[in-house]
Amino acid sequence: SGHRIAVIPGDGIGKEVVPAGLEALHATASRFGISLQLDEFGFASADYWQRHGTMMPADWEETLRGYDAVFFGAVGWPEVVPDHVSLWGSLLQIRRTFDQYVNLRPCRLMPGVRSPLADREPGDIDFVVVRENTEGEYSSVGGRVFEGTERETVLQETVMTRTGVDRVLRFAYEQAARRPARHLMSATKSNGISISMPYWDERVAEMGGRFPDVRVDKLHIDALAAQFVLHPDRFDVVVASNLFGDILSDLGPACAGTLGIAPSANINPERDHPSLFEPVHGSAPDIAGQGIANPVGQIWCASMMLEHLGHPEAAAHLLGAIEDVLALGPAEAPLTPDLHGKGTTVELARAIADRVRER
Amino acid sequence: SGHRIAVIPGDGIGKEVVPAGLEALHATASRFGISLQLDEFGFASADYWQRHGTMMPADWEETLRGYDAVFFGAVGWPEVVPDHVSLWGSLLQIRRTFDQYVNLRPCRLMPGVRSPLADREPGDIDFVVVRENTEGEYSSVGGRVFEGTERETVLQETVMTRTGVDRVLRFAYEQAARRPARHLMSATKSNGISISMPYWDERVAEMGGRFPDVRVDKLHIDALAAQFVLHPDRFDVVVASNLFGDILSDLGPACAGTLGIAPSANINPERDHPSLFEPVHGSAPDIAGQGIANPVGQIWCASMMLEHLGHPEAAAHLLGAIEDVLALGPAEAPLTPDLHGKGTTVELARAIADRVRER
Ligand SMILES: CC(C)[C@H](C(=O)O)[C@@H](O)C(=O)O
Ligand SMILES: CC(C)[C@H](C(=O)O)[C@@H](O)C(=O)O
Repeated sequence: SGHRIAVIPGDGIGKEVVPAGLEALHATASRFGISLQLDEFGFASADYWQRHGTMMPADWEETLRGYDAVFFGAVGWPEVVPDHVSLWGSLLQIRRTFDQYVNLRPCRLMPGVRSPLADREPGDIDFVVVRENTEGEYSSVGGRVFEGTERETVLQETVMTRTGVDRVLRFAYEQAARRPARHLMSATKSNGISISMPYWDERVAEMGGRFPDVRVDKLHIDALAAQFVLHPDRFDVVVASNLFGDILSDLGPACAGTLGIAPSANINPERDHPSLFEPVHGSAPDIAGQGIANPVGQIWCASMMLEHLGHPEAAAHLLGAIEDVLALGPAEAPLTPDLHGKGTTVELARAIADRVRER
Repeated sequence: SGHRIAVIPGDGIGKEVVPAGLEALHATASRFGISLQLDEFGFASADYWQRHGTMMPADWEETLRGYDAVFFGAVGWPEVVPDHVSLWGSLLQIRRTFDQYVNLRPCRLMPGVRSPLADREPGDIDFVVVRENTEGEYSSVGGRVFEGTERETVLQETVMTRTGVDRVLRFAYEQAARRPARHLMSATKSNGISISMPYWDERVAEMGGRFPDVRVDKLHIDALAAQFVLHPDRFDVVVASNLFGDILSDLGPACAGTLGIAPSANINPERDHPSLFEPVHGSAPDIAGQGIANPVGQIWCASMMLEHLGHPEAAAHLLGAIEDVLALGPAEAPLTPDLHGKGTTVELARAIADRVRER
């Protein structure tokens, strides 16, 4: 009975923001009579690595497969395990194994949040990045030759497949078709990356034929990054390869004030596998343990998860509560330091959970 | 007698800003008694492509080898020739053939220029991107299999060599060692790009051993892009792979107000081959032919070229003239539209050349 959710706090501030996210999730679920069954797991963390020498148990896939969704904090603790080992041994493996081929990352300037961009107001920044999440530049194919000599050469393969490219493009076009502006911007670099990116462009054009109502444009990633800063108001849906989507979905939230509030949904649209919800920020070793991490990214993830689980009203209610509290600004609400306030993780999460109950 | 300079206007606004750059160059050269011998070439352009079916003549290498430097506008006119064809057939080939392995891109918020970032003043943004310019993600190695079928798969190789990585890192460390802050930031993505980028990190650490006075840090490209917006004042020298350097050297100038003023130097530090000086902006088909392109990027390139040719005083004088004119602001100087003014390319170049003669 109820939705089964696997909870994985992971490392660093993941352990602080996940409980905060759960508080808001519980408040929303009880308000809307949604029944949830939560199980917490300690793997995908440096602690687990230290005890077991792997990031996840051998049967992680069977374990997680039994859940409707994964509520994920952050993973990575380079003092203990190199990032590429911890990430390829956990998050990146989950994304692939569960074919979570869409990484959906909304980017919005919220009321009460100060943008580092001059004269930008809520409404000026409101787009969504649709990031390819299983292939592309993130591959583990390649290696070194002539190691340790002057001839040392390192190869790393980018792999794009028609299946992989087309399915994320279709999703992005569908998103664009549903939004009022009906505009899709494709990130490319076909002038410099001369094999994979022209292919990406071709597929974008081809898929466009099926969505005559969507206006589509492309920009090279260098120009596109510049435009995020100069004209963030011009974007609606942005579709990008794994690496370009990664960059744009950090840059976008930075333009919208802070990475601390940005959520992401790693989605398997066919629902053959569980989807995974994690904030865009990482484990943030520099502020971990201080109780000052912004919990809003994780709480917004709870909203996206509720939507995915079929509760759009509850999702909208929770997002509304986030907006209400942020809109009070740092003087009235216990906003965290990245939002120019003096609040703690716990205080901000509490304020949002209270607001969920009140509104 | 004098320095031999090959002039290649190229496409689009390249044809407008190159003459503007030459006017400032001539004014500076005559003021400092520097003798220049300029030859202009029409290749590396869509016009040339239309007449010859190639971007450059077969003997381009012998031709350009006879020069001390190349003063380059911009190349790319996708209506006529696809960007990856025009670029790989010209600029990218020149960079490699002439081992211009450093692409040096200063990024500075100039007096009189409005940053899109709130509350940033000249002095807050003043760093240099050292971009690897011959290998890495820009390769033409790879291809397609199972073309036209559902199995279609596209591979594109990133290639890093010890020689290629170490030489640009050494240059970057040397730059950092010479600047007051002595700080080097390395762009990486070793958590996701798990073969080439961990290698890059290793070489950064190894090379650091030879520069004990330089503080070195690394940030993943996603976080680094975000930091450019949130804390541009924290950067001094940034070293990056070909692709990451490309992105950061567009994003940086955007944060500093406009791509229109940003210069770049494609340098062969050993001087075995000519170096090439080109603005960061491209051929800009959207504004080409209107006479409103900002000539400052090209003029700043002239300053970098003079420095490279052994005339640091003349270079500084020209840069000073640029600063003086920009500092007047759009009300007093004929600044171009990207600088919120109503000036034309010709008027702004004239104002800077006049200032070179006056100051
Ligand atoms: C035109 C393009 C191939 C080129 C590059 O990516 O190197 C340009 O963006 C640049 O930065 O010089
Ligand atoms: C931690 C890292 C491997 C990951 C990624 O690059 O995908 C993160 O930056 C993200 O955006 O989810």
